[in-house]
Order: sequence, then structure tokens, then C-alpha cells
Amino acid sequence: MAAIRLTYRIETGGDISRLAEKIASDQSTGTFVAVPGETADLKARCAARVADIRMLEPHDGPAFPQNRVEGGVYARADVDIDFPMEVIGTDIAALVTIAFGGVFSVRGLSGVRIVGLSLPPEFIRAHPGPAFGIAGSRRLTGVYGRPLIGSIIKPNLGLAPSEVADVTRELVEAGVDFIKDDEKMMNPRYAPLADRVRAVMPVILDHEQKTGRKVMYAFGIGSADLDTMLRHHDIVADAGGNAAVIPINSIGYGGMSYLRKRSRLVLHAHRTGWDMLTRHPDLGLDFSVYQTLWRLLGVDQFQVNGIGAKYWEPDDSFVRSFHDCMTPLLDESDRALPVIGSGQWGGQAPETFARNGGSVDLLYLGGGGIMGHPGGPGAGVRAITQAWEAAVAGIALEEHARDHRELAQSIEAFGRSGSP
Amino acid sequence: MAAIRLTYRIETGGDISRLAEKIASDQSTGTFVAVPGETADLKARCAARVADIRMLEPHDGPAFPQNRVEGGVYARADVDIDFPMEVIGTDIAALVTIAFGGVFSVRGLSGVRIVGLSLPPEFIRAHPGPAFGIAGSRRLTGVYGRPLIGSIIKPNLGLAPSEVADVTRELVEAGVDFIKDDEKMMNPRYAPLADRVRAVMPVILDHEQKTGRKVMYAFGIGSADLDTMLRHHDIVADAGGNAAVIPINSIGYGGMSYLRKRSRLVLHAHRTGWDMLTRHPDLGLDFSVYQTLWRLLGVDQFQVNGIGAKYWEPDDSFVRSFHDCMTPLLDESDRALPVIGSGQWGGQAPETFARNGGSVDLLYLGGGGIMGHPGGPGAGVRAITQAWEAAVAGIALEEHARDHRELAQSIEAFGRSGSP
Repeated sequence: MAAIRLTYRIETGGDISRLAEKIASDQSTGTFVAVPGETADLKARCAARVADIRMLEPHDGPAFPQNRVEGGVYARADVDIDFPMEVIGTDIAALVTIAFGGVFSVRGLSGVRIVGLSLPPEFIRAHPGPAFGIAGSRRLTGVYGRPLIGSIIKPNLGLAPSEVADVTRELVEAGVDFIKDDEKMMNPRYAPLADRVRAVMPVILDHEQKTGRKVMYAFGIGSADLDTMLRHHDIVADAGGNAAVIPINSIGYGGMSYLRKRSRLVLHAHRTGWDMLTRHPDLGLDFSVYQTLWRLLGVDQFQVNGIGAKYWEPDDSFVRSFHDCMTPLLDESDRALPVIGSGQWGGQAPETFARNGGSVDLLYLGGGGIMGHPGGPGAGVRAITQAWEAAVAGIALEEHARDHRELAQSIEAFGRSGSP
Repeated sequence: MAAIRLTYRIETGGDISRLAEKIASDQSTGTFVAVPGETADLKARCAARVADIRMLEPHDGPAFPQNRVEGGVYARADVDIDFPMEVIGTDIAALVTIAFGGVFSVRGLSGVRIVGLSLPPEFIRAHPGPAFGIAGSRRLTGVYGRPLIGSIIKPNLGLAPSEVADVTRELVEAGVDFIKDDEKMMNPRYAPLADRVRAVMPVILDHEQKTGRKVMYAFGIGSADLDTMLRHHDIVADAGGNAAVIPINSIGYGGMSYLRKRSRLVLHAHRTGWDMLTRHPDLGLDFSVYQTLWRLLGVDQFQVNGIGAKYWEPDDSFVRSFHDCMTPLLDESDRALPVIGSGQWGGQAPETFARNGGSVDLLYLGGGGIMGHPGGPGAGVRAITQAWEAAVAGIALEEHARDHRELAQSIEAFGRSGSP
């Protein structure tokens, strides 16, 4: 029978296989004591099962410091556990309640991280997935054969709606394909969403009228009050907008599911809060698992940091995340467009291109790299475009910069000390 | 001007006060480089400010292992940062996006935990809070002056609706005040919510007709699809049910807010997944902070483990959680009824009572302690009742057991080796 397979990377001062069995039992039919009714038939239908245990190198210290034992060695293994579809069904709340959450409460573990999730097609098909994804993001912006180039309104907080429109005008004229509100910008008193839409959309639409190119602007519509979020969604869509920034962890699986069912917009996921779940390498959740759920729920564009990001995340982790977003669950339409950001100015283009298998299916966000370019935002966009041309053509940036002035300026400004 | 105060317990191999300033800047108006428009006026209105730094004992190892430096000492401090209401407003998604999430991505931290949250009354008043809370839970069950005593349907998975009804009948006749589905029980194929309600509610209502006492049954209505969750809610409420188990982390802030606005039921929060956020003592989130948000969103009853729980959580942590739930945000009506569970059989009653300031405002859940009692479930309920009588009267359990047979049996069965 169809099963959902979870892979847990567990660590313990005790016995791995006993602990694996305990997890499988606790997270399905078992409780602390045998109770009447937990029959063999019931177990056969509903119990989770340990399918495989692959031992890893032990650690000499525990991930959870309170689980330290004198002279202890901490055995580690990747444990596959299969959960019957009969028990979980196709509901993401059931999946995370049964197979994600409880294991972190189990005694005797000195560490646990969820590193794998394999879903039967039946589960995947029960969810809408991205409404637009990579193909839709290209169709709506008219950008083909190269990365979408985007920017972020800065300063990220504090601008009045008319000032946001001024920055938008500057970016639109600079030639970006995409603009977004900072994820922290939602509906503050000094710049309510409705007023920002009223100020910004004429700039977008006038530019479209003049040039035939519609810049995608992702407005921060997020709210923990879903009625408010849906109202914000409608304001954007009714004004001719086509995208929204969604702080996915701040609204939760329920909020995302609710929105996706009713959405007319491209949903650009910001994952603030994600680091809390993943930064400790032996605890929490791998991005591969996390992004699967959010793509099923309808994320079209997924922020994944980038090479040389300003945050804690190492390059290797970014490369894995990019690969995750680009890997179909069922088919290519359920992929999410990877959004590369954080300290990007184009200098990272060659390595980004090389390490992501030569893909240009991505949205490349420059904040300071565009707004802070010595030649102004237009020069910033051209510099990034030139950097990507060089990367795809296999030309060294310095060489390409010889006859590409804006790129040369970027290298000068950001290349060594002062990355944006 | 009113501000929201967050307290971060930060750890770093570098300089604490520089890092504190960086967090305040990054999480409000700042970005990596100075950008045009980040004016003094804008900063005055919108910037977060470091209000206080209280140094703690340093650690000799980092919480994030990748941040280890040779011979390093890791400075630690509690840092208060004030965020202007102007920027966050009263939206919980804005609060967690701006003040919770981003800090975990900051480089240079070797650990960070959110340990304090202080909200202005204006923020608190913008949220509904519990519809029933402690007073409502007592009113609906008719239980005053003692803890509510509850149990959980076991086995937690695999029973057909008619079997759930059989267990319910046994528990109702045993005299419990409250019954709940296991948090893993939502809407499986072999026992859909609608069928469980149809099977269980006649048992509850017949018992009410005969005895005048309505047992509160919390059905697992959770779903990441909020339309499904609301339909489940209506099925329960329309059948005369009065409570629901909500896997809060599995539906998210948006899901909870959506439900609370439309709910007629007592909302019993199960916090599966919470351990992922809190188990490492130097990372993540304190329960005091977490429960504040969920109470604002409308949790009536909050699971908090108990003394001698079967999970990893130490007793001290449980005692703090109990205290958190009982501490008003604005007034007593916004408290959530603490739900004590996990390996409870009554033997923990004296310590529970003593350490929680002599409070009996709690729901005490016995699973194995009731269903696994040698004299049957009725004896299990009586044993727990007797244990609480002894605790409140200040009589030692062993003494009370001399003329209370069921308690004596519990002590014999669970007291030493075999806790349920």
C-alpha cells in the first residue's frame, strides 16, 4: 500500500535501532503503555514502519547540549520511516502533525533533523501546486533565455507611498523586470497597502503602455488575518498588479492554502523564520523537505539566498536549495522559480551559473547592487545584465568589463571590499 | 511612542553590542549599504532601537556548531530591542516577520533565542483572545473548585468510528469531564471526522440527558485546507459538540485567526512541532513568547506537558509554561486553561499543585493512567480525583491511599517502575 516516507537524521547516546522503532511507534498507533485495542490488525493497517537505517559517523558531542553524557559518543543514522496513507491521507496538517512534529519531543534523542520526504503521486495530486511557476513568471514579464532581473524597494521601511512610487519609477526606467516590497513592508500606518498600490500601479501601467513591457511588482499583502490578506490581494489584482510577497512562515500552511485557492497573483515566497528551523545542521528541517510542502501549497517564486550571501547560509546550501526548487515533484509545471538575493550585484553570476548546472531559470535580485551602483540604478541593472551575459558566454567578468562600463564600475565598487 | 519590545538572548564569538546594533538596524530600516532615502527623519520614525544589554555568563562552545572558532569564548547577553508600532502595527504576521524571523539569519551570531516579548495594550486589544478560556471551560463542563479531569481516545489511531464511540462510552461512564481525540487523529479514511461525530455525539448527549453533565469532547478538526477545517468545525458544532483539538503549528497563525473569527467551539491547542523551536536551550523561542501569540489568536486550552512527562521537557520548563498560561496579558479573561498531560496518573498531583502556586485551574489528562488502570477506566478517574483531593488537602498520597482503593492501585501499578 502507498506510504509516505520520512527520513530522519537521528543522533543518540543510546541505541539507534531501538530509538527508530520508538519513533515509528510513538508517531503512529503506539502510546507509552499497551492499551486494549491496539490489535495486530490495527497495527498492520495503521502503524508506521522502520524501512531502513543507514549508520553515519558518530559525533563526540550532542546537538542538544542537555543530552550530554560523560565520555559519551553519539551514534548517528539516517532512518527511513514509512507512514501509511490510510493514516495521514493527503492533508498537509495531518502530515506535519503526525510525521514532522512529534519526533522532536522524543526522549533519548540528542539530535534530530528531517532530511527526506517522499510523497506518493496521489498526495501530490491532491494539491494545487504553483499557479504560475517558472513558465508563468516568464510569460507575464516577457523575459526569455536569460534570468529575470529584479530589485527591492529601499529603504525597506519608512517611505511614504509617493516615495515608493518614486523609487519604482527609477527602477522601472532602469529596466528591471521585477520589483518587490521588502518582506517587512506589509501594511504600516504611514504607507498602507491600498495607498501604495494606488501610487505604484500607475507607474507600472504607464511604463507598460509606453514600452509594451509590464514590470512585475510584488506587493507585500501578508497578514495573519486572512480576510485582510485576501482584501489586500484583491486590491492588487483589481489595480492590474500581478504578484505578491508572501511571508509564508508568518501566515502558515493554512494561510497559504487559503490564499492559493482564491489567488489571481504570482505568489513570491519570502521565508523569514526559516533559519530558525534549519541553521543548526543537526536539528530541524532540510530545505528540500520544507520547500516541497510550500510548492504543493502554491508557491510560484521561492527565495533561496545566493552565492556569497550576506546571511549565515553557506554557498553549498544555496546550491542545494536551487536544485530543490528546480526538481519536479510530478512534472516541470510544479517547479518554483528560484529567487536569488542577498548581497548580489552580478559578480556572483559566473559561479551561480556554473554551480546551478547552467540554468538561467531564476530571478536575480539586486538591492544595494542596483540602487547603490555608482552610475545609478540604470547602470546597476545594465551591470547585472552584462555580468550574466559574460557568465553564459563563459567570458571572465574582468574581460567582459573592458568594453562594458557599468560592469567595470560594479567590479570597482563592489568587487573587493565593498559588496553591496 | 508605543513600542514592541523583544528580548533576544544572543551569543557570539564577536562583539555583543555591535551585533545588537546590527540586529536592530537589519530588522528595521537598514540594509547592507547606506541607500539614498534612509534619512534621519525616517530613522527616527521607523528604526528599531537597542534599549538595554544585560551580559550573561559566556559559553565555551557555540550553539551553532559551524560558528566554532579555535580557542573561542562565546559572549552572551539578553538584548532588549524596541520596534516602533508605526512599523509593525498590530498584525501578528508583521510582528513575526519583522521581529522574530530575520534575526536567525544574521551572520556572526553563534546562537540566538527569543526570550521576551512585551506588547503595548493597543496591540493586545486588536486581537480576539480566547472566546472561552478558563471560565468558559468550567462553565461548559460544570466543574468548579477542582481540576477538570480528562482522557484521550486510545489507541490514538486505527479505531473505527463505532470503536471510538465505545471508548467514549467507557470514559463517559467512568466520570471524566473531558475527552479528546489524539492530536494525530484528524480525518483519516477509516474514521472520517463526520463519521466520528455521528458516532460519538449521541453518547455524549445521552449521558448529558441522564446525568445533567455534558462531557466536553474535543474533536480533531484540523486541516491545512481551511475550508475543510471550517466544515469540520460546523459538523461538530451543529451536532452539539463544544470543543476541538487544533494542531496550531500545522495550520499556522493565519489558520488560527481564520478559525477563531468563525468559531463556536472551545479551541484546545496541541503544540506538535513546538519542540523543534524550543528544545535547544540557546536557540529558538521561549514558550512565554510563543504562547502569547497563540492566546491573542484565540487558544482556550493549551497543552503544556506536566511533572515527570514522558517527553524531553524538564519539570521546570513545564512549571514556567503553566505560569505563562495563567498570567493575564490584559486581564484574567485572556488566560488559557493549562492542559497537563503526558504520563500523568495522579501521582504527580501533589508536586503539580505545590509548584503551580496551589492552582486547580487546569485540565489534567490521563491516557494510560486511566485506560490502563488495573481496576478499569472508572477506577482510573477515581484514582486521579483522589490524588488531587490529597494534594489540595496536603495529605501524603500513601496516607490517602490507605482508605482510597483506586489510588492505592494506581500507586501499585504506576508508582515505581511502570508509569503509564
